[in-house]
Amino acid sequence: MTGERKPETDYARSLLLTDLYQLNMVEAYLAAGMEDEAVFEFFVRKLPPDRGFLVAAGLEQAIRYLLEAQCSPAELDWLRSCGRFTKRLIDFLAGFRFSGDVDAPPEGTIVFADEPLIRVTAPIAEAQLVETRLINFLHFQTLVASKAARMVLAAPGKGLVDFGLRRAHSGEAGLLAARAAYLAGFDGTASVPAAQHFGIPILGTMAHSFIQAHDNEEKAFRDFAAARPDQTVFLLDTYDTERAAETVVALAPDLAEDGISVRGIRLDSGDLAEHARKVRAILDAGGLAEARIVASGGIDETVLQQLTADGAPIDSYGIGTSLVTSEDHPALDCAYKLKAYAGRPRRKRSEGKAFWPGPTQVFRRYADNGHMAGDTIACADETMDGKAMLQPILRGGRLVAPLPTLDVASEHARAELDRLPEHLKRLASEPPYHVAVCDALRALARRVDDETDCAEAEIAPGKASAGPVGDG
Amino acid sequence: MTGERKPETDYARSLLLTDLYQLNMVEAYLAAGMEDEAVFEFFVRKLPPDRGFLVAAGLEQAIRYLLEAQCSPAELDWLRSCGRFTKRLIDFLAGFRFSGDVDAPPEGTIVFADEPLIRVTAPIAEAQLVETRLINFLHFQTLVASKAARMVLAAPGKGLVDFGLRRAHSGEAGLLAARAAYLAGFDGTASVPAAQHFGIPILGTMAHSFIQAHDNEEKAFRDFAAARPDQTVFLLDTYDTERAAETVVALAPDLAEDGISVRGIRLDSGDLAEHARKVRAILDAGGLAEARIVASGGIDETVLQQLTADGAPIDSYGIGTSLVTSEDHPALDCAYKLKAYAGRPRRKRSEGKAFWPGPTQVFRRYADNGHMAGDTIACADETMDGKAMLQPILRGGRLVAPLPTLDVASEHARAELDRLPEHLKRLASEPPYHVAVCDALRALARRVDDETDCAEAEIAPGKASAGPVGDG
Repeated sequence: MTGERKPETDYARSLLLTDLYQLNMVEAYLAAGMEDEAVFEFFVRKLPPDRGFLVAAGLEQAIRYLLEAQCSPAELDWLRSCGRFTKRLIDFLAGFRFSGDVDAPPEGTIVFADEPLIRVTAPIAEAQLVETRLINFLHFQTLVASKAARMVLAAPGKGLVDFGLRRAHSGEAGLLAARAAYLAGFDGTASVPAAQHFGIPILGTMAHSFIQAHDNEEKAFRDFAAARPDQTVFLLDTYDTERAAETVVALAPDLAEDGISVRGIRLDSGDLAEHARKVRAILDAGGLAEARIVASGGIDETVLQQLTADGAPIDSYGIGTSLVTSEDHPALDCAYKLKAYAGRPRRKRSEGKAFWPGPTQVFRRYADNGHMAGDTIACADETMDGKAMLQPILRGGRLVAPLPTLDVASEHARAELDRLPEHLKRLASEPPYHVAVCDALRALARRVDDETDCAEAEIAPGKASAGPVGDG
Repeated sequence: MTGERKPETDYARSLLLTDLYQLNMVEAYLAAGMEDEAVFEFFVRKLPPDRGFLVAAGLEQAIRYLLEAQCSPAELDWLRSCGRFTKRLIDFLAGFRFSGDVDAPPEGTIVFADEPLIRVTAPIAEAQLVETRLINFLHFQTLVASKAARMVLAAPGKGLVDFGLRRAHSGEAGLLAARAAYLAGFDGTASVPAAQHFGIPILGTMAHSFIQAHDNEEKAFRDFAAARPDQTVFLLDTYDTERAAETVVALAPDLAEDGISVRGIRLDSGDLAEHARKVRAILDAGGLAEARIVASGGIDETVLQQLTADGAPIDSYGIGTSLVTSEDHPALDCAYKLKAYAGRPRRKRSEGKAFWPGPTQVFRRYADNGHMAGDTIACADETMDGKAMLQPILRGGRLVAPLPTLDVASEHARAELDRLPEHLKRLASEPPYHVAVCDALRALARRVDDETDCAEAEIAPGKASAGPVGDG
């Protein structure tokens, strides 16, 4: 093709999946002899409009990256060939092993603005180098899991299946989106690699092209049923939806003779509620009351809520683009920030991007009915009422305990959604959940600002946060 | 971790990076003995609001996938272990080699709604199986290249650098977004793997954390300059932007003694135009007129246009989230559709999702000043006035000629942007570019509808297209 290209798959576990400025920083830390322990926390500065909560996700990939990331010999050769990196840096990368501590809420935990999704405590060069990929993993899966949770809440009792691989932002994005959606309560995915790599149930029906390739729809349905007798979900909207439903009804007795039952049909265009009602009536009248109706095409949580309110006789939904791109808000305003170095708390005060200094912990209180009643962000060494949300994951670069399986994480997410206050289960999610900041943390912020000689008025995080998303 | 997981990097070149329904369709085609040639085309149904044109991108990855995709032995084992796939299908996958033809506009070409980004002509099972990954590659890079082109047009003469890896939807997305942005006219990226894999120039400055980790800003600047004397772009907004600019000015003579010049400064928060003006004045007064101003944080094409109109003294921009997620429109309404099977033209008529039948070609006319003057979508076997946009890429599964290098593709994109009519270079992009449909194609659509027994009124593509995005 274009000559001596490198295989593109090298990058996934690579330490080089990072920004150049991280390498610059590591160079500078090494040159300045700065080897003390740093504490970084990754958090969302502000929830997007229409997001009352977030579902933490991506921790397993982040942790595996910390445990396994390295530079391959080919990458080290490439670094040397660039002529812009010192031997000291390249040796550091060649010998890299993450030696630090990680604390985090388990995947599936509900989180809010300013609450850490991960806390990394490690020699500063190590903690800095991994920033880009940690954000990359945690941001995207949290984004999609949070979007998926809204869909789960908007369509109680309905089956939800990820159809998004083709329009995800890359293959890796499709794979990780399937995982995040399943974690948040989806029932399965259409994506084959998600079954292979994560054991997620896969579901698939048929394509318009199959029907188009046949001279008539009935023959297409027959051929499909013969080839996939256990997956007979017929796609109805290629030409005329209700006429296709009649075709399925007429075909059913023949199929039954071959021991094949009609499992269901799929609608993929038009007024889904109207078509579902008409098709339901045709199927019921034709003796196919057991056949399920699957709908797809342009579905998001708002459509789900409308169809649910409408009582549309749809049993399950295939959801693609709106899910895997988190289409209304395809990014979160989030940051991985230095909170302490060499035991001293730190913060920056950039306009609209200030944050609380020092390592933090989040304590969550529950009401008598089990619902979440309010959080307090506190200094990490404080003990307060409520459950501490960040738990030890790594100590000295080793797992404290095996990470939960995806199914366990998914169970946890389900329980967390049950614990949401009722108003946060609605799509509008008003009023916001109450997150307080403890007095000690406020006092610490004032002290840190005094020490860094930049105190004017008190700057509280989030208050001035207007813009979309900064970068570091 | 969670037991016997498989490495996640297998998937990138895998035939299994697809939807289950593609495997179902291949099963059914094989079972029904349908081995004739199919023609599929991938196109965007409707441009998003605020997109007057698209920049075709992702073809190199799509073609490499066609040439190289296979199932690994481990994947074949996994397929067998599932118990849901026939030996016939698994043998087909094991022996897969794409044997078909591909025609496409070269990367960097300007395209509009209903115009093919790729035409695949191959035995139907082959052409069907690759759908998911072809869409996955072409959709995302076209999305990002089109967004990037708007930024290029909104900031003439300014340097533009991709800062988006961390908030891209996965590592692969970050890598491909850097490529798409460079193709559309960006000058470089912060992403190290984009340099390694695509040879894109990389740029990087410094992080807030580096400054925070120091007890004072001046020491941080000194340490950074000592470690990276050739990359002295100082980040100013950690505490107080203008004060930091004064610090840089005060430091400059000392650095000069060590042979280090101040290359520039970076602003990352607040009112960028106001800070840029103040900082420019401070730098100029301090003898640093040569130092460049880089701005980042929440920048998109609208902000670029405002800053350009405002005459803000900013030399270059680092752009992340809005670029790599195409934040205002993170997906295109696009489809890969069967246009013919066994020599007979086909189309579906689903509500809002009808399309023109048969293989198509696009002919583009130019005005005397070289600007694009209008396109006609025609049947592929017609010859019309204008330049034929789709060119042969593969014949019989082999490259007709080596694909252009990324730099050549980028040059082509630059020339294409020069040929845009002036009104399409503006962000509002009104009125839309004129794309006609030839009479023969309209007649063909009527004939195909008659044959598939579903003709009522003429259904023209796009006219009823309301919804977001269907799924196949």
